[in-house]
Amino acid sequence: MAGNSFGQIFKITTFGESHGAAIGVIIDGCPSNISIDLDFIQNELDKRKPGQSKITTQRKESDTFQILSGVFEGKTTGTPIAIIIPNEDQKSKDYDHNKDIFRPSHADFTYQTKYGIRDHRGGGRSSARETAARVAAGAIAKLFLKQKGIEILAHVSSVGFIDAPAIEIKSATDFIEKRESNIVRCVDAQTAEEMIALIDGIRKEGDTIGGKISCTITNCPVGLGEPVFDKLHADLGKAMLSINAVHGFDYGSGFDGSTMRGSAHNDIFTTDKSGKVNTKTNFSGGVQGGISNGMDIDFRVAFKPVATIMSNQETVNKEGEAAEIKGKGRHDPCVVPRAVAIVEAMAALVIIDHYLRNQIYKQ
Amino acid sequence: MAGNSFGQIFKITTFGESHGAAIGVIIDGCPSNISIDLDFIQNELDKRKPGQSKITTQRKESDTFQILSGVFEGKTTGTPIAIIIPNEDQKSKDYDHNKDIFRPSHADFTYQTKYGIRDHRGGGRSSARETAARVAAGAIAKLFLKQKGIEILAHVSSVGFIDAPAIEIKSATDFIEKRESNIVRCVDAQTAEEMIALIDGIRKEGDTIGGKISCTITNCPVGLGEPVFDKLHADLGKAMLSINAVHGFDYGSGFDGSTMRGSAHNDIFTTDKSGKVNTKTNFSGGVQGGISNGMDIDFRVAFKPVATIMSNQETVNKEGEAAEIKGKGRHDPCVVPRAVAIVEAMAALVIIDHYLRNQIYKQ
Amino acid sequence: MAGNSFGQIFKITTFGESHGAAIGVIIDGCPSNISIDLDFIQNELDKRKPGQSKITTQRKESDTFQILSGVFEGKTTGTPIAIIIPNEDQKSKDYDHNKDIFRPSHADFTYQTKYGIRDHRGGGRSSARETAARVAAGAIAKLFLKQKGIEILAHVSSVGFIDAPAIEIKSATDFIEKRESNIVRCVDAQTAEEMIALIDGIRKEGDTIGGKISCTITNCPVGLGEPVFDKLHADLGKAMLSINAVHGFDYGSGFDGSTMRGSAHNDIFTTDKSGKVNTKTNFSGGVQGGISNGMDIDFRVAFKPVATIMSNQETVNKEGEAAEIKGKGRHDPCVVPRAVAIVEAMAALVIIDHYLRNQIYKQ
Amino acid sequence: MAGNSFGQIFKITTFGESHGAAIGVIIDGCPSNISIDLDFIQNELDKRKPGQSKITTQRKESDTFQILSGVFEGKTTGTPIAIIIPNEDQKSKDYDHNKDIFRPSHADFTYQTKYGIRDHRGGGRSSARETAARVAAGAIAKLFLKQKGIEILAHVSSVGFIDAPAIEIKSATDFIEKRESNIVRCVDAQTAEEMIALIDGIRKEGDTIGGKISCTITNCPVGLGEPVFDKLHADLGKAMLSINAVHGFDYGSGFDGSTMRGSAHNDIFTTDKSGKVNTKTNFSGGVQGGISNGMDIDFRVAFKPVATIMSNQETVNKEGEAAEIKGKGRHDPCVVPRAVAIVEAMAALVIIDHYLRNQIYKQ
Repeated sequence: MAGNSFGQIFKITTFGESHGAAIGVIIDGCPSNISIDLDFIQNELDKRKPGQSKITTQRKESDTFQILSGVFEGKTTGTPIAIIIPNEDQKSKDYDHNKDIFRPSHADFTYQTKYGIRDHRGGGRSSARETAARVAAGAIAKLFLKQKGIEILAHVSSVGFIDAPAIEIKSATDFIEKRESNIVRCVDAQTAEEMIALIDGIRKEGDTIGGKISCTITNCPVGLGEPVFDKLHADLGKAMLSINAVHGFDYGSGFDGSTMRGSAHNDIFTTDKSGKVNTKTNFSGGVQGGISNGMDIDFRVAFKPVATIMSNQETVNKEGEAAEIKGKGRHDPCVVPRAVAIVEAMAALVIIDHYLRNQIYKQ
Repeated sequence: MAGNSFGQIFKITTFGESHGAAIGVIIDGCPSNISIDLDFIQNELDKRKPGQSKITTQRKESDTFQILSGVFEGKTTGTPIAIIIPNEDQKSKDYDHNKDIFRPSHADFTYQTKYGIRDHRGGGRSSARETAARVAAGAIAKLFLKQKGIEILAHVSSVGFIDAPAIEIKSATDFIEKRESNIVRCVDAQTAEEMIALIDGIRKEGDTIGGKISCTITNCPVGLGEPVFDKLHADLGKAMLSINAVHGFDYGSGFDGSTMRGSAHNDIFTTDKSGKVNTKTNFSGGVQGGISNGMDIDFRVAFKPVATIMSNQETVNKEGEAAEIKGKGRHDPCVVPRAVAIVEAMAALVIIDHYLRNQIYKQ
Repeated sequence: MAGNSFGQIFKITTFGESHGAAIGVIIDGCPSNISIDLDFIQNELDKRKPGQSKITTQRKESDTFQILSGVFEGKTTGTPIAIIIPNEDQKSKDYDHNKDIFRPSHADFTYQTKYGIRDHRGGGRSSARETAARVAAGAIAKLFLKQKGIEILAHVSSVGFIDAPAIEIKSATDFIEKRESNIVRCVDAQTAEEMIALIDGIRKEGDTIGGKISCTITNCPVGLGEPVFDKLHADLGKAMLSINAVHGFDYGSGFDGSTMRGSAHNDIFTTDKSGKVNTKTNFSGGVQGGISNGMDIDFRVAFKPVATIMSNQETVNKEGEAAEIKGKGRHDPCVVPRAVAIVEAMAALVIIDHYLRNQIYKQ
Repeated sequence: MAGNSFGQIFKITTFGESHGAAIGVIIDGCPSNISIDLDFIQNELDKRKPGQSKITTQRKESDTFQILSGVFEGKTTGTPIAIIIPNEDQKSKDYDHNKDIFRPSHADFTYQTKYGIRDHRGGGRSSARETAARVAAGAIAKLFLKQKGIEILAHVSSVGFIDAPAIEIKSATDFIEKRESNIVRCVDAQTAEEMIALIDGIRKEGDTIGGKISCTITNCPVGLGEPVFDKLHADLGKAMLSINAVHGFDYGSGFDGSTMRGSAHNDIFTTDKSGKVNTKTNFSGGVQGGISNGMDIDFRVAFKPVATIMSNQETVNKEGEAAEIKGKGRHDPCVVPRAVAIVEAMAALVIIDHYLRNQIYKQ
């Protein structure tokens, strides 16, 4: 009810504030007998962690995790998996000036009004630091999905007005290798350079900029997703919109599809040599009637620019009086390079949950 | 788990197939002592019902509803409200040709694969007819929200490449009056004419076209929405994406926001004469940190073109063999005029649910 | 949240008041391709229906049900199954005298205080008539479980101080035949006669009496039940305690077990010729650590005497003033003969739900 | 779904194994601005902790807890509260002999069969050590309820065949003082002595014995509990039956009520001088129609004898072959003295959850 849980069967509950003792997650409903690769989990966290390059915030957090339960001799036991990530570089004093003031386009005002109290240090619970817990849980989901051959592949497709060209995925390995070869995490090397230059310039100005992430889920079996309210793409949409700074989601033909005619948009069914039913086009984005149809699932996620900027801004304080907020501290000039890991994690959480939900009816 | 319920406190569960005995909904968790205006509910259903104009499907359904429980002497009692809407004009035989064949971009293939059985008549459960049940439940939610001064106002903002200009809302009455003055449900009369002409032409060609609906929620109190996963806009997004044919959702600055800079995007706080905290701009779309901030909530929903067209199309049958689907029957050339009522209903369901969730912590 | 749903996967939501238009239930999450035997469902309802014998209330309800959705050509489709049971013999005027008065040990006072409004006719939502909807849903659960060989067998084991001897179950058929051979539904014919005589005498006095039902679940596979909070016996306990008039639940050694020593109570494991692991005794009642162990599951349910009696009683009215309630109308002198069907239905709902939950982890 | 969560609004999720790194709990949905008294929480944990007296297991655990999140400057913030309790005295080697063998009346066999893997050390997740996490969460619930004047008061009412006389509660302080004055936690000093002697004798024999705990909830407001499935007593029943070793639950007149007549059992309403509606008797146990009526809520919980005994026992191993289990290690001769804190915690969790659920409808 209080909204800190996600998923029906593979259910995660996250906790923790930006400058508290630790953040973490409990996974309840993870199948037993999954081998846990600790390096893989750390590697996923490293893609999200702050301080990883010149175009991210310089807060230093190793984001080293510890598993407290649910894993025995390297395998999951079917009991809750608790993971904690201690906070290290907290510099809470950096935030003393925010104590009684509402930062523009942050959650300070809404939290204060809703709860009558807030941990103002670094945004407290509203900090994107919370997403590290999601990435840890998503990494375990990925380990399960990889066994089934399912890959989740996201990259930065836009920064500001710079758009990457359409990407053809040769293999998961190739995709990831290309993406990780540059600090902005765009698969197209040429575009990546332009994006990095843009972000770096904006960083120097003390400003921020938005961007988009595109994600493709390959090899998803037919049948995932529940009709009516828990359509696969509706759950993907909610998952993405729950990530800090996300302002839009579309899948398949997306917003552009709303300008098309049915005769052009319909995906014609064919059968390949192996007997598998495919579609000639994929405007459906791999989902029909809310249920996966075996084609690639693809969607896009739009991120607004980060609200923390290095300029002074007008605002109001707790008493509603005019005030000024100083531009200082550490910040991300553009959130999308770090958010690739979050998008993939949330997608993995949706897919594993629907994969397990779909097991139920197999009699 | 099977996905036919929506909401946490004001929870609806819908049932029914396009050509079964009836469709309907149970509302569990409706507060007691709400006066039920039967005419208002019917009026909402009428906006969604088929056969209402030349640019909608000609299936004739009066969509007359019956309340079986939960209302006593005109008021809700706090017990479950069951509403049924019998199906009338079923013409099930129109669908015999679909029995063993998968219609392109419909849910036939995915349902058959997932369940091993399907009610093929008119799409069965995957038919948008299910949304009538949502509209009935949404009408009751609206009756509650109106008492609190909250209005939910949607209209058709695009059909194909025709876009309505930005609308300024003077009052709910004015907005609805203008919208209902034309059959496409666009508040701008000039644009409405163009849209109607476009849809009518496409209808004559036996084709279909997509469109967009824009929605604004006015007078929403500060504090609705839960941080982290159940952010207000994430639940709105899921609600919209759960509507048949929706391929995209964005709110506030939306996809465009991903091209902006933080210095331009940040909404500066001010206090008005009454002491209410406002923002000078509203790129946040009325939601900050997942929680309503008292400004108008606005979002957009993109609908793909309807998959049923009047041309013959290639496809495969249940055995995966090549087949042809005939273009015949009744269909909507463009879904958005009827979908305005659905978008409003789903928005009302999200808002009432978060309104009630927010009551919990008021100690 | 409002408590009208039960189950996680095979989830039912009931609706309806004693004297409204109809009562009913939606089952969401029923597996597809289950053959629906309408006669079986009606037969289950008949065991619960009023007016079936001289020792039950004389209200006449045929409890004829109608399935509105989710079943196509005799089989479940995996979509929600809606069932309604119209109310017939409503005699609502019999209840006019209750409108402003609180009947002792009924729910009138608590409903009025909680909701500020109540449908006073026949207890409204608090009437045990609601359980007919559970029996209909439970019948469908039983049809599924029977396919798996699982049988749920309850009978009246006590009325007042009359206790039936311990019963050995030869077969489900034999058990049911013996039980249905008498109107009190006790498998032991001799005890049944005594029980009937007792109830009939009490009925003539205008009084009521309590009783107990014992239930055994045979052939349940190992592994049903989730550790910690959703232990199989905890969910069975909640299911039983949710039935009107139930004041106690125990399983296996039950309350008597609290007087025993561990050395006597431990169930020693053995392996039978087929390799199946059994226990020599069954003080565990078929459940260990909250999970079924393959032995018979057995539990007992205690019902208080019905609150409606034919004597005048002191009470208070809505204003809290002293008042008198008249003894008149129709009532059950003892609820247990009709409650056998309810106990079995609720047990079936718990078992099917945990059966399906246990499917999830089968990788 | 996997059953490690409890509650709808004040929702706890526990994690951890007996011999893992730590156990703990996340509370999601705790109201903001509750003052957290750390000493009170520790004091509650101390009542449950092992090694506290000669009649409990001699495992030494300080059960020192740490709050990782959700509390800021001594007050709850409305965000998830994560609590961990590290495991100290693990002596895992004591359990090597259990690795491939199923202990009688333990969960070894059912866990192994359900999950295909188990942490055998000290019962792993099935250990009653998990309940420490519940006690910590329950302590926070109690802090909230105390502000509302609600007290939850349990004590040991039976050990084996020794029953305490009925207790009249003068005040919470008096009750707790008397109970804590002896190590068996029975309010009646004379009975306590007998109980202690019995348990001590049984301990010396290496055997164990069952017992019962009685609990009373005073000053509960009218209106808690939801009709139909989530009746207040049904949720209390489930809560109690989810505690390790519990085999029975009854409330109000309980099992004895099933032998009574309605004319004797009905609780006559009266109004006291302050205008509060009371009942002359309280066979309803403070709950009518599943909703609290303002009278004391009372219930009883039956515990079977602990399965770990100091004698050798026959059993089978993982391969289903006959084996012998050695009687050694540390164990509780009788669980009820330590379980008083668990019963109170679970009751507090049910009451706070229904208290908050009841806030929803207050318009």
